[in-house]
Formats: sequence, C-alpha cells, structure tokens
Amino acid sequence: MIPKSSSAILLLSCPDQTGLVSRITNFIYERGGNIIDLDEHVDQVEKIFSIRIVWDLNHFSIPPSDLHQEFDKLAKQFDANYDIKFRDERLRVAIFASKYDHCLQEILWRHSIEDYPYDIPLIISNHDTLKPLADHYKIPFYCFPINKENKAGQESKELHLLSEFGIDTIVLARYMQILSPQFVSKYADTIINIHHSFLPAFAGGNPYKQALERGVKIIGATSHYVTEELDRGPIIEQDIIRVTHKDTLDDLIHKGRDLERLVLARALQYHVEHRILVMGRKTIIFD
Amino acid sequence: MIPKSSSAILLLSCPDQTGLVSRITNFIYERGGNIIDLDEHVDQVEKIFSIRIVWDLNHFSIPPSDLHQEFDKLAKQFDANYDIKFRDERLRVAIFASKYDHCLQEILWRHSIEDYPYDIPLIISNHDTLKPLADHYKIPFYCFPINKENKAGQESKELHLLSEFGIDTIVLARYMQILSPQFVSKYADTIINIHHSFLPAFAGGNPYKQALERGVKIIGATSHYVTEELDRGPIIEQDIIRVTHKDTLDDLIHKGRDLERLVLARALQYHVEHRILVMGRKTIIFD
Amino acid sequence: MIPKSSSAILLLSCPDQTGLVSRITNFIYERGGNIIDLDEHVDQVEKIFSIRIVWDLNHFSIPPSDLHQEFDKLAKQFDANYDIKFRDERLRVAIFASKYDHCLQEILWRHSIEDYPYDIPLIISNHDTLKPLADHYKIPFYCFPINKENKAGQESKELHLLSEFGIDTIVLARYMQILSPQFVSKYADTIINIHHSFLPAFAGGNPYKQALERGVKIIGATSHYVTEELDRGPIIEQDIIRVTHKDTLDDLIHKGRDLERLVLARALQYHVEHRILVMGRKTIIFD
Amino acid sequence: MIPKSSSAILLLSCPDQTGLVSRITNFIYERGGNIIDLDEHVDQVEKIFSIRIVWDLNHFSIPPSDLHQEFDKLAKQFDANYDIKFRDERLRVAIFASKYDHCLQEILWRHSIEDYPYDIPLIISNHDTLKPLADHYKIPFYCFPINKENKAGQESKELHLLSEFGIDTIVLARYMQILSPQFVSKYADTIINIHHSFLPAFAGGNPYKQALERGVKIIGATSHYVTEELDRGPIIEQDIIRVTHKDTLDDLIHKGRDLERLVLARALQYHVEHRILVMGRKTIIFD
Repeated sequence: MIPKSSSAILLLSCPDQTGLVSRITNFIYERGGNIIDLDEHVDQVEKIFSIRIVWDLNHFSIPPSDLHQEFDKLAKQFDANYDIKFRDERLRVAIFASKYDHCLQEILWRHSIEDYPYDIPLIISNHDTLKPLADHYKIPFYCFPINKENKAGQESKELHLLSEFGIDTIVLARYMQILSPQFVSKYADTIINIHHSFLPAFAGGNPYKQALERGVKIIGATSHYVTEELDRGPIIEQDIIRVTHKDTLDDLIHKGRDLERLVLARALQYHVEHRILVMGRKTIIFD
Repeated sequence: MIPKSSSAILLLSCPDQTGLVSRITNFIYERGGNIIDLDEHVDQVEKIFSIRIVWDLNHFSIPPSDLHQEFDKLAKQFDANYDIKFRDERLRVAIFASKYDHCLQEILWRHSIEDYPYDIPLIISNHDTLKPLADHYKIPFYCFPINKENKAGQESKELHLLSEFGIDTIVLARYMQILSPQFVSKYADTIINIHHSFLPAFAGGNPYKQALERGVKIIGATSHYVTEELDRGPIIEQDIIRVTHKDTLDDLIHKGRDLERLVLARALQYHVEHRILVMGRKTIIFD
Repeated sequence: MIPKSSSAILLLSCPDQTGLVSRITNFIYERGGNIIDLDEHVDQVEKIFSIRIVWDLNHFSIPPSDLHQEFDKLAKQFDANYDIKFRDERLRVAIFASKYDHCLQEILWRHSIEDYPYDIPLIISNHDTLKPLADHYKIPFYCFPINKENKAGQESKELHLLSEFGIDTIVLARYMQILSPQFVSKYADTIINIHHSFLPAFAGGNPYKQALERGVKIIGATSHYVTEELDRGPIIEQDIIRVTHKDTLDDLIHKGRDLERLVLARALQYHVEHRILVMGRKTIIFD
Repeated sequence: MIPKSSSAILLLSCPDQTGLVSRITNFIYERGGNIIDLDEHVDQVEKIFSIRIVWDLNHFSIPPSDLHQEFDKLAKQFDANYDIKFRDERLRVAIFASKYDHCLQEILWRHSIEDYPYDIPLIISNHDTLKPLADHYKIPFYCFPINKENKAGQESKELHLLSEFGIDTIVLARYMQILSPQFVSKYADTIINIHHSFLPAFAGGNPYKQALERGVKIIGATSHYVTEELDRGPIIEQDIIRVTHKDTLDDLIHKGRDLERLVLARALQYHVEHRILVMGRKTIIFD
C-alpha cells in the first residue's frame, strides 16, 4: 500500500538500452526523492523497457509543477512515453450505469470506505432506476435516456457535463449502451468497462446465454479499456468462477454478478493507483 | 470414492415425469441392490431428467449379464437413454500422443498408482519421440507417421489396431494431428481431447500465441469430447491459471503445461468412473 | 436454482441400510410429489446415509401441516434425524453487527435483490455506527452497547427481542462480541459466524496480524455455525485469496474484507436454501 | 523468463535510506551491465529495503570472480545483507524421498525438460522403493534406512555424501524422517520441505486425517524452508483445493497429491532462480 504522504508516480516505457534504471533513479536521487516502490521490466522479445516508480516528495527539491518540464529533458533522450502523477492529485471518476445496481453499488461502497483518494463527482445513467442508490451515497445523478434518434445529442450533453466536472476517468458499471467512436476517442485509455465474460470468449451480447449454450465449466468477467472496437480494448483484469450443469441462466447471472463487481473494482483501483501502462492492445499492471 | 467391491453404475436421461426416481430405485431395491451414491437433476427449462446411481451388487438378484435386458423394460416406459456399467469391467483406453510428454507422462504415472481400474493396452503416436516413456511404463507403443498422402491409410491401420485391442476410449494427449471425420464417427463421445486454451476462446492453432497477443490475464485449458467440428465438442473440464505481462510465450507454454495435464487427467477420471452424461453439445458431470 | 412454486425440502440422515432411497422416494411418489432435485450420499466409513430431496407440492395429496406427522412413521423405521421445510415458509434472520459495514452491507444488498425469500426483521448491534445503513434498507436497528457488567442483561434483552420477532437464524456479520454459552445454546446450529481466517489456522483474535507475522502466502475466511467452543463450530464455507510480501496489515484487512462478505453470504444462502446438514462437528453441504 | 545468456542476480536487503536504488543501479551501469529485471520493495512498517536485480554480463567490465569483492564496498555502506548469483552457476540439488513417488516424479520430470539449469547429482532415501524411478532418470540413488538407533550415524554418512557431491540445496520430497537439528543447521535456508497442509493449520502428523476430522472445505499444501522448529520455517509457497463431504481420507490424499507436487515444484523453481529472500521467519518472493 502506498503511504498517504505526498508522493510522485512515474509510469514510463521506451526502447530498451543500457543505463535506463540508473539514469532515472539518479534523477530522483539527486533531487532528494526517496524511492518507495519500483517495478521494472524489459520485454526481451519486443526490447521494450517499462517501469513504475513511486517516490516520496518530502525532501524533493523540485516542486510538482516543474517536475514534468524537468523530467522531459531526460525522457527525450530515451524516446520515452511517460506520465507523472501525484498521489494527492485526486482522479475525477464519472460512473455510467443503467439498471443493474451491483457494479455501481460496489464502487460507491468501496469509495465510501477506501483510503485511496479519488473523487466521484457524478453518475450518469440512461435510466432513473439507480437514482436512490446515488442519493444514498450523496452523488449527483444525471439521467440521459438514449434511443436511436437522440443518441448523438445526448452523448454531446454528457460530454459537456463531463468536461464541466473535470472528469478524467469513466467507469462503465454495466452501462447498457454502446458509446459512439466520437465519444470514445475523447477518453482514450480512460474508459473502463466490465464485460461479463472471459474475453475473448463470448464477446458481444448475452454472454451468459452463450456460455450456457456452449456448456462451459467456468464463466468469467473481464475489465478492459474501451476502444472503438467493441470488446477488443486492452484487458486490465479478469477472473472466473466454476459453474455446473445445475446452473441455470439465472444462476450464471447471479454467480457472474459477484465476479463482475470485484473485477471492475480491482481494475478501477489499478487505474486510480496509476499501476497501468497501456502498450498497444495490451496492458502492463504493476503490482 | 467408490468402493472396490462389485457395483453397477446407471447413467440415464429422459423427459421428466413424476415418479422416475421412485420407480428406478424400486427396481434396484426389489432386486436386493444397495444404493451407494445417487445424484439426480431435473433441467427445469428443458424438462429433462438425468440421474446417476451406483449400487452394490453383493446381494443383487440379477446377474450383470441379464441386467440390461431386465432394466430395458423399465427404461422403455420413460423413453430413456441410458447405459449401465460395472465397476469391475475395466475400460480399455488408448493414448495418442506426439512429441510433448507432459500429458502422456501424467496419465501413465496416475495409471500406475491409481486405485480406479482401467487398462491402457497401447500408445499410438505419429513420432517415436515418446517411445522411451512408454517403455518405462511397459505399454506397447505403435508409431504411425502421418503426412497428407498417407493419412487415410495410417488411420485405417490405427482403427484396425484399436479394434484388435478392444479399445473403447481414446485420449488425445496433445496429439498434434486432426483425426478425420470418418475416424471420429467410429468413437462418438469416447475420444477425449485436451485443448490448450479456455474454449471457446482461442480455438484452432497456437492458442498460447493468440493469448499472448490478446493480452489476457488468465490462460486456460479445456478437455472435451471430440466431434467432427474442430474444438467444438462437449466440454468435460476446464481450469485456468493467472499470467502477467512478464510472461513470455515460453512462460505461457510452461504454465499451461501444468494445466493441460491436470485438466486432461481429471476428464479421463470422470470418464472412466462413468460420471459423464453427454447431452447434445454439453455434458453433465456427476460429482 | 429451485423454482419458485411451492415445494418441500427434506434433509435426512440415518444409519445406512438397503432400500432407503427407494422407500423415501416411494413415499413422495405415492402421494403425488414430483422430485425436482435429489442428492444422496453414503459415508462408507461411518456407514451413515444422508439425503436432500426437493419435490413439487402442486399435486401432493398431503397438506404441509400434516406432512411431518405422516413422514414421521417412515422416519422412525430408519432411526432417522430429519427436517422438512417448505419453500414458501420464509426463514426469519437477525443480523448482528458492530462497526465494520462490509458484511452487513453485502447481506442487505443481496437480500434486496435476491429471488430466494427470507426475512430480515431486525439488525442488532453493540454500536450505533451502522444505523444509517440499516435505515437505507429500511430494517429496524436495535443498539445494545455491551460491557463486562451489562453483558448478561443485554443478552437477555436481545433474546427477548429475537423471540418477539420470531427469529430462527442469526448471522454474526463481524459482530465483535463473544456470545455467552447460554445465548448460543438457545440457537444451536442456527447462528452463522464469519471468522477472518482459514480455520483452524489463526483462531482467536487478530487473525490478519497473526497471518502477517507467520508470513503465509494465502489468507482465508471461514463461515461456521457457532458452538460454545470459540471458532470450533461446524464449518459451512471457506475461501482464500493470495497475498505477497508487499501486503501490509491494512492490505490483508482490505483483501480479507472481500473474502469475508462473500463467504458469509454464501453460507447464509446455503442455510436459507436448506442445503446444510450438520453431522456432529462437520457439515454436509448439498449443492 | 530470464534469458539464457550469462547474467548476474543480486538479492539484497538493508535498512531503508534515500538513494539505494540509484547507487546500486549506478554501480551496475558504470560497469557496463544492462538491467533486465528489477523488483524493489520497501517495507514501510519495518523500514527495510529489499531488491532483486538481474543484469546482463555481456559487456560488464568486472569478471564474476571479482564482483563480490567489488560490490562489497558498496554494500558495507548500507549495512546490507546480500548475495550475488550467476545464471550459469548451476545449483546442485539433492532430493530426499521415502516411499511416495509423486513429488520425486514431478521434480525429476520437470528437471528433464526445464530450461532453467540446475543439477540433481543424487537422490537419498530411507527406503529402496523409488530406486526404479531414479534409475529411469539416471540419477544416482543412495539408500540410508533410518531407525532410532542408527539415525545419527546415517545422517552423518548422508552429510558426508552431500559434501562430497557439492550439494547446496536439499529438497524433502515427502521424506518421512525428521532431520536432526545438527543436520538442519548445516543447510540453513536451503532445505525445502513440502508439508501436506495449509500451514499453520494441521502442523505435525497426519494432516489430511486432521483436516477430515475438522470438516474443512478446503485443503492445502505448504512449501517452506526447514528450521529446527518442526513445520515453522519460512513459507515459500502455498496452494489449496476444494473438498466436500463426499471426500474420504483417500480422496483427500489423492487431491492433496496434486497440490503437494506442484507447490513443491514451484518453491524449488523460485529457489533455483534466486527469487527468494529470507527475512527472519518470512520470505520475500520476487516474481
């Protein structure tokens, strides 16, 4: 667990070369940073270096506001993609939901008791079913009913609202609408979905029905970043549960419910803790 | 665990109606059979009744040789599909393998120490790589190299051999050839395959490579009966293991190896213990 | 899943003898009952027969009120312990909690959406921390602060209240008080506790601290019926999660929280569905 | 997976201070080493820094023979415990077994196909039961029957043999004798045992019998380093499998067999890959 004091988190990847760890950690050390957690990996096939470093800013000589600019000089030498986050900058997460309450319930409850700070400034839904739940947790709830005709207009209102609230992360908590490519492109690698199957098995609609018909002995759930291709985005987390011939469609739905909410909650946690590096169609999860 | 004394095992399914359990168990009781294990299920959607009963034959009044004929009168009244097996009739299992040894090794080792009796009269392979392993366990090993030209002829020799050895079950222990539909049709619901993915994900060739490219967080293995449709037969058993971004293709292969052999071994055990009822494209596994 | 129509559930155990299944299922068949689910087992070491039967009462000739008396004649012949429940008789479950909300939250949420009917007429706590949660789900909440001096008196008030509300099942949802033997004896095999370790490891206080100090690689949770011996009652359900050297005490508590609530929820579900037969210090869970 | 080329592995722990990663990675960088894998952790409670670094020696300026001496100057400044291993220095592992073959079989089979190089120069047993298995894998097999009278003498012969063969790691593959404290003290943190329970539950003899009597729903296996206190050494790896009321003692033994061999094999793999840092009564496993 990351301590609550002020700290910085670097996520970086670049073509591998000698001296990367040394030069990056030197940068931190020379400026008085104390490294708390470091996880590094080199993909020996692709020759890609990736690293996550968390360091304590208590005696760090550069103010957070100047850190990006300072570090950028070093990063340019490596041709690196990177991001630096601060532990006390809270992510602002909007939840989208429809009628099923289990994923929304799980996230709101965890948010209410978790140490790790992020904000949930609003909930958006295409139905008003879950408003009482939002009310219980005192989160503003906005309802945008969607049909074929109004979809573009409603999405544009939603985008306006997200922008107004300064949202940087969207969680689709069993939101039963497909976001348009225009919408998705505005939140690249920051929309987290839960699909109720062990992807790539049973992509698309009614995965539990598909699973029942195929007679699988295990069902799964998959949390992934949303891309313009349906159910094809980078996978963040998956988990499974055993089923038997005794399980009906309703049983699969009930068993799956427990999977979905835990898998989605874990994916969101990795995201807000800045543990995820998206590498093309895959993710690196630093643990 | 089923005791070693002589016992009978009934596997039966039929359209549901009132009184089925009572009439079947009466049939056994009136003839002096003592039921050791009974598992029954009614599919409430399809209205299909299915049951597995194991009973002790010590004081049973009908000899095994007459049991089918006697029970058939009752079964006809229910329009039932059924099979009756005897605990001391040993299944005769042929193993097909290629170059990978892990699945063959697992099955031969288990067979050498297991209580549950079945015979492995021969091993068939398209390579001679695994002959030393067969020799160690003193199982006759037959090599039939396969190429496009000779495939039909070699299969026909294999079928002749299987028939000669009285084989009733075939295990494909990572056998790297696709059996022809003609071959498969002769061993319906009795050829057990292991596919190295969590079917239906990554059917076909190179599933670990597919898994790596998709960036899944969990890989699996699936044991199923072989049908004429590749990787589409009724699933018997599945299991999974977690992987991370650190795992290379070789790592997936190594981790998967432990899955494959255990999943295949469990599927074979269910089969030889007569715990499997094939219902169309699905299986019921009585535990 | 058991269908919602009216049905009866028999749980029975007795010394094994020939003909038990036949005679019991005949009893049901002759009275027009249609068996939906039957699971039977004979312990070959102890020679104990146990069975769970669910049957449809739609065309059953005996009214529920007379069933016990009628069946008792048969049961006496087998020297059987048994219980008959009806699907539409709702169990009345009291939840005891203290300050942690996760188990209470889980049970109230599931109760609010589950098909399977049981009532939660009241929540009892030794603190008022969780009253808002009870209010959200509109369940009466009673607070009985406990200290050494008032314990006997408070328990006696609680017992009075439980009796008044017709409670037949108690769930200790991380209730941080030890119930007196006098209290426990009044609710034999009907008080369900969750212990936050993989019992029998780390019985007693602070199991996560014990786990951390021992350096285990897996932590667990155990739901069991409460007996007068602390943490020694019959185990209903257990589950585990992996931990690493990176996990602090707080991390264990957080990871364990997800285990505890799911394990407790599953145990309660088995209980209200009448799937549990207590056999001395052990349980049989019919699935 | 670590590449096969020549590389060095540093395992180090010391009191935490600023600059540790930077100074250690600088040491490697300045000498031309390319870091392949680095995992670092600071225990925020104990304030202990621990790290594992793997680096490529292809262009490293110091010969392996001088590396310890050179690095020692740096390590002394941190008051560090550390060890440096070389990827092409093969560990020399002796296996001790008794009559059960599953763990020995697993290790010998894996050893025969694994990439990761280590040697198994000999097998020691107190029975001759497993000699044929050793012969199949062409490993010298030494039998030292043990009884109360001859134990000290036999152990001393074993120690002599181990020394002669240059053994640095001992695996107890269900070896059914307790090693004397004198023996254990000679191989601190290098004797790996498999205990057939989820420690600390069911330490001591007959853990499956204990598990059956307690009515647990999950059984486990634990691999740990052997210390003078029985079943109390630092845990390396654990895993579990579900059991039900249907499982007899024999079933637990059979299910557990699959756990034991996989858990022991994984523990040995971590050990030979130098992924384990022993910290008092606990281990850090770098993955």
